[in-house]
Amino acid sequence: MVYHSLRALVKENRMSGSPSLLRVINSVAVLSELRASSPATLADLAAATGLSRPTVEAAIEDLIEQGWAAELAAEPGRRVGRPARRYHFRADSGYVLGFDVGRHRVIGVLADLNGQQVHSHETQVDPQLDADKRIAVVRSVATKCLARGKVDRSLLMAAGVSVPGIVAPDGTVTLSTVLPGWNGIQLARRLEKSLSCKVFVDNDANAAALAERWHGVAGDVSDLIYLLVGRRMGAGLILGGRVHRGFGGAAGEIGLLDPRKWELRREKLLGPATQESIADRDHQLTEQIIGDARAGAREAVRIIDDFCEVLAQHAVAMTLTIDPELIVVGGGLGGAADLLLPRIKRHMDSACLRTPELAASAVGQEAVVLGAVRLALNAADEALRQRAGTTAR
Amino acid sequence: MVYHSLRALVKENRMSGSPSLLRVINSVAVLSELRASSPATLADLAAATGLSRPTVEAAIEDLIEQGWAAELAAEPGRRVGRPARRYHFRADSGYVLGFDVGRHRVIGVLADLNGQQVHSHETQVDPQLDADKRIAVVRSVATKCLARGKVDRSLLMAAGVSVPGIVAPDGTVTLSTVLPGWNGIQLARRLEKSLSCKVFVDNDANAAALAERWHGVAGDVSDLIYLLVGRRMGAGLILGGRVHRGFGGAAGEIGLLDPRKWELRREKLLGPATQESIADRDHQLTEQIIGDARAGAREAVRIIDDFCEVLAQHAVAMTLTIDPELIVVGGGLGGAADLLLPRIKRHMDSACLRTPELAASAVGQEAVVLGAVRLALNAADEALRQRAGTTAR
Repeated sequence: MVYHSLRALVKENRMSGSPSLLRVINSVAVLSELRASSPATLADLAAATGLSRPTVEAAIEDLIEQGWAAELAAEPGRRVGRPARRYHFRADSGYVLGFDVGRHRVIGVLADLNGQQVHSHETQVDPQLDADKRIAVVRSVATKCLARGKVDRSLLMAAGVSVPGIVAPDGTVTLSTVLPGWNGIQLARRLEKSLSCKVFVDNDANAAALAERWHGVAGDVSDLIYLLVGRRMGAGLILGGRVHRGFGGAAGEIGLLDPRKWELRREKLLGPATQESIADRDHQLTEQIIGDARAGAREAVRIIDDFCEVLAQHAVAMTLTIDPELIVVGGGLGGAADLLLPRIKRHMDSACLRTPELAASAVGQEAVVLGAVRLALNAADEALRQRAGTTAR
Repeated sequence: MVYHSLRALVKENRMSGSPSLLRVINSVAVLSELRASSPATLADLAAATGLSRPTVEAAIEDLIEQGWAAELAAEPGRRVGRPARRYHFRADSGYVLGFDVGRHRVIGVLADLNGQQVHSHETQVDPQLDADKRIAVVRSVATKCLARGKVDRSLLMAAGVSVPGIVAPDGTVTLSTVLPGWNGIQLARRLEKSLSCKVFVDNDANAAALAERWHGVAGDVSDLIYLLVGRRMGAGLILGGRVHRGFGGAAGEIGLLDPRKWELRREKLLGPATQESIADRDHQLTEQIIGDARAGAREAVRIIDDFCEVLAQHAVAMTLTIDPELIVVGGGLGGAADLLLPRIKRHMDSACLRTPELAASAVGQEAVVLGAVRLALNAADEALRQRAGTTAR
């Protein structure tokens, strides 16, 4: 509600004297514009924010003083007239970390405030690794990213962590059937201590949905489902432009709709869900079935058909519930979208009033870790807005 | 996003001169407080809004001038000291209409801006009535409510209409299997002409969900599903405190999940879905089955069991998708919630990670029309905020 924030502003204003209210608003507005399109001249910023030029100039001075903006050197080629000064957002004024904590590997990405990757690091881990040791791996991946990216830990503004499991709002993993010993782990709290910044934990499918909206096929879609299709079946929901996590963080756990059927058909395509199943042999078998199905081999086609029937069952249930604009198919089997999408669509057309658009993930395997980066960037954005406010007051 | 509204304010401010910005904010803040708790003294309003007393006084003067607030007469009993002036929101400064347009009846409710019912009127209609004639009935119900409530049409601020069908954002009924000839009817546009106010159309289950949050068991729940259980099976979703309608307005059309099973089991309890099925004979049969089941008669219990199994299937699919805090069961069979709820819960407990709270509707059969009133009140609230802004500028 707009009203609440206005009231908050009015209260602040009452405490700190009238001129500051507008200065706070102006500073935030200029910073947001500068983030959205750098470099920009004072005239650009005045036009975009609707503020007067002197007001923009005062705001820019505040932002430079606090390190969020900087002036660009004049373009050397220009000689006619006095060149307009150009300013840019200092993306190096802070950094974020994103992690994809999986059963077999931990991936970390260090990025600046524009989301540009500075360094990424991946470590293979034993699937049976216990929780303490797996968390220690996350810490060491963080340390490596910072050291190799030559970024001081004090510049970290936030970190995001994606996990295959259900996550409570406070960053506790309430249930993970994939990571041994992670049920009840207070992951955000434990990592905050070692990273010395706020840590945000989310379900892997939710993170993938965020990434798809940031860098993928869902850029301007406000209601979408991301189907993370692989050995585990999960869905990330974005509703009204925001991740919908549900009351207990369990939104999108659609794999439980018809679990026996799902397990049976998954097994045919991906091998049994035991720890041995991730051996190369199984992966190659899956690739072979996919290849055979593309070539039209009857048995392989039937395995894919059956697999898609249960995927479609999940997609139908979710579509009848929330009627999204788009369903993105990604995850371990995202590469077989050419086989999956038309089959899912056929089932949905016969069961739904309106089949949403179906698309293959454009981000691919990196979606989960990129979503974690985006999670951290969202938090950094929020902190930035607040600091810009503090600056101007 | 707060930022967008701030920027909008900054733009307004630039066009109309600096002092108005704060005056707009103050006026809206005072009006909102006054709506939330009337009567109030200047001191009350100053404390609640965080504004200074002179600022509140100026805002109140603006609001009185425009008819949104009034001073209360001094309490006659008080004699010690000068009594503080008390102000109240003028709920009679505008009115709204809500309609429940069903197959067999059209209900209208006229309410003031506090949502107090001024008059309500119900007209029975032929189930086969065509669209033009049914819309004419809505108009005549509106006219009766206004005449008998002694309210001038010019005071109508908005109207809400609930229909059994799928509604596009512009108020067009895109699909109704219940009302003959309503597919494609531009209902909002057609009613706006005759009612001379903005008209908001919504699906009946969505409206019922709104009503349950307004007057029922879901007061402070931000994520809930309202199951409208009757001859038709629909669900209304409230997510993050707002109705979630879906991209095509088809969210909650969960009755299509397993349509043959649903129709079969519904028929056993509610009779065949033909037009004759709504005869009293069928209704009495349903009541008898419910009564027999309460008494433990085996065949009746089995009909209820089977019916609940398919209801639970719907509830499970929606819960796995959005993980709500609460599911409210209402509609034509809401009165049998004592039989339905424990059975639905048993199924859900075995299929969901976390079964949401289950509750019987506290609003009952009126939920659909009350939701339409709430829909109109929400629009009136928004218009009020904007007018309060205009006043102060």
